[in-house]
Amino acid sequence: MSSDITRRRLLGTVGAAGAGGVVVGASGGVIGARVTQDDPPTTLTTVGSTTVPFHGKHQAGITTPLQARGHLAAFDLAPGANRKTAAALLRRWSTAAQKLTAGEPVGDDTGVALDAGPSSLTVTFGFGSSFFDRTGLARQRPEALEPLPDFTSDALDPKRSNGDLWVQIGADDALVAFHALRAVQKAAGDAARVRWQMNGFNRTPGATKQPMTARNLMGQMDGTNNPQPTDEDFDQRIFVPADGDPAWMAHGSYAVVRRIRMLLDSWERLSLDEQEKVIGRRKSDGAPLSGGTETTPVDLDKTDAAGNALIAADAHVRTSAPETNGGAAMLRRPFSFHDGIDEDGIPDAGLLFIAWQADPLKGFVPVQRKLDRGDALSAFIRHEASALFAVPGGAAKGEYVGQRLLEA
Amino acid sequence: MSSDITRRRLLGTVGAAGAGGVVVGASGGVIGARVTQDDPPTTLTTVGSTTVPFHGKHQAGITTPLQARGHLAAFDLAPGANRKTAAALLRRWSTAAQKLTAGEPVGDDTGVALDAGPSSLTVTFGFGSSFFDRTGLARQRPEALEPLPDFTSDALDPKRSNGDLWVQIGADDALVAFHALRAVQKAAGDAARVRWQMNGFNRTPGATKQPMTARNLMGQMDGTNNPQPTDEDFDQRIFVPADGDPAWMAHGSYAVVRRIRMLLDSWERLSLDEQEKVIGRRKSDGAPLSGGTETTPVDLDKTDAAGNALIAADAHVRTSAPETNGGAAMLRRPFSFHDGIDEDGIPDAGLLFIAWQADPLKGFVPVQRKLDRGDALSAFIRHEASALFAVPGGAAKGEYVGQRLLEA
Repeated sequence: MSSDITRRRLLGTVGAAGAGGVVVGASGGVIGARVTQDDPPTTLTTVGSTTVPFHGKHQAGITTPLQARGHLAAFDLAPGANRKTAAALLRRWSTAAQKLTAGEPVGDDTGVALDAGPSSLTVTFGFGSSFFDRTGLARQRPEALEPLPDFTSDALDPKRSNGDLWVQIGADDALVAFHALRAVQKAAGDAARVRWQMNGFNRTPGATKQPMTARNLMGQMDGTNNPQPTDEDFDQRIFVPADGDPAWMAHGSYAVVRRIRMLLDSWERLSLDEQEKVIGRRKSDGAPLSGGTETTPVDLDKTDAAGNALIAADAHVRTSAPETNGGAAMLRRPFSFHDGIDEDGIPDAGLLFIAWQADPLKGFVPVQRKLDRGDALSAFIRHEASALFAVPGGAAKGEYVGQRLLEA
Repeated sequence: MSSDITRRRLLGTVGAAGAGGVVVGASGGVIGARVTQDDPPTTLTTVGSTTVPFHGKHQAGITTPLQARGHLAAFDLAPGANRKTAAALLRRWSTAAQKLTAGEPVGDDTGVALDAGPSSLTVTFGFGSSFFDRTGLARQRPEALEPLPDFTSDALDPKRSNGDLWVQIGADDALVAFHALRAVQKAAGDAARVRWQMNGFNRTPGATKQPMTARNLMGQMDGTNNPQPTDEDFDQRIFVPADGDPAWMAHGSYAVVRRIRMLLDSWERLSLDEQEKVIGRRKSDGAPLSGGTETTPVDLDKTDAAGNALIAADAHVRTSAPETNGGAAMLRRPFSFHDGIDEDGIPDAGLLFIAWQADPLKGFVPVQRKLDRGDALSAFIRHEASALFAVPGGAAKGEYVGQRLLEA
């Protein structure tokens, strides 16, 4: 469809360039919806008009505050693809992402995002291990993309796992997010085909009185213990350093993506006390069972008068604690999912777990190994899909994502 | 799970009773996101704190402004169900819905809605034709529940069609909506089982600069021509009159529910001009091709200088116009849906069409018959599921929905 619709014109001052527009820096604001600094007061107008810059040191969508709607899509390159066709694809995708995130129409625009502002849209691109063989770039494949080890609790569907390329889309408006997904798919043209695609969601801006840690579909706060950009070692844990290996991954990060089904019928049969014991935190406010408030550090050694540990030996907060995993830390930035009911009438729902780290072997892997051996939560979840992607640093203006790999 | 969490307490002033709370009357504000009167300025706080009253002359969720997130669920009664078990079910459901919509916890609350306000939650209940046989109430079945005629463009999946009971949930927050869906499912207990369940969405509050007519996933404005509560004959067209037949349906309405898949690949291959000709309206602003602005009445007779009709003979706006259908009118209040990709990699996406009317034989049926015979849009959509429900009037305080049927 040839379109001469100027979305920016229709948007008026809601548009990216509008007077009321807000631009959120890639590291600003909140992560996991937790307040990390003084946020500007958010108004309804800013829900639509907030722009997350596409260009930057890191790609957007990693430290960007959680958005209300998310799409994950993995693509496989078409047979006969090579470095050149892949480069052209990433160039097209970057151009589209830059326009979409600025609230501008793309070529053959479907019009689905008309009227709305960019609504904090981010589009993030990553490379799976198989990408490098198919493009003759095996030598450039990061060691960190070695396949994740098998975990006993995995029940992975290969058709919904892995993929040559990964696109993560987030926005505070569902139509803006869908519009971007469709635009990315169309921009793929004949070069790549969708392998799997998943939809997720988080809180709507303004549904809570103030930004709060997200809740998952088990009702638990999720993300309390996330590293924060204000932490001294945040960049070191989450992003590949400027002189990292391979060089093209400088300022990049690795994303572990898991579709984690929640066995809600089993979970909801537990009493509140039992649920809190499984997690090690209070459901109502996220405070650790060792006392304090949500942000109080968990005291794993604390006991009651009888000498019993307040945090159970298999509590999720203990098995996943950085202290018990050699200081491993990852930035968890998930979406919830809900894909209707399964054959038993139970919601096919859970968490699109997305964890960011400079090195999966120091982030996700040791934590998941520990969880696999004895996490009380394991009985109530099932890992149904898994993928690992190398997400390069952000593109500078005039550059496209992955250019340092594809034109090295 | 036994829960003593007082959600209202945690909500503080965001709660339904909070100082900043906004209560939207069932007929107030906007329908189809179109401004029909001066709306109070909406702020982020009101997204969460807005309460739609459960009790009233009509059930909520019919003239309530479109919410950002929706769940539709059909239930079938368990074998051996009777009028008494059905009455107990509707009583449990009404109690749960009253609490949920007020932002209060329900028994065995999952905690998923903790922190958030009611976020304009509505829960609406209806009865399918099969309900009446299973409960020995065949004599009370409304004539209006006669099965819809077959349409040539139908490709209906019986497993996702019909059902003894129907629940429509809408909220501006996805977790609040999921929480309500799960609560309704649990409150069903052994009395009824989910038959089918569908998820949908609309714009997030604040994504557009001001409330606007919704757009669908084809990019078209959708709902421009909806009857408005300010219309003189609105109640007559949408609601069963106080002395209607059967008596228990007084102030009720009939909901036609269709899962309408959009064939987006075919649609998006059309040029903008071609798409606008199919619809008969401009995509950018919804103005009819006969001229004017979105709200200008369509002039079906207008021609260009050469004598050609500006609105094509098969344009959707012509075939669906009340003028060409004996004045039929229904209130369309849909959600978009997107359930990932199909086997061809195309989004399984479209419209959860929900149309409200006092009589389906005067509302949906004549319009759909006309569309079936020659609507240019037909080539780009496929009706995949269909259902028709009698939605009784609202429950008074102390009453449950359907009581006038079940205890007559």
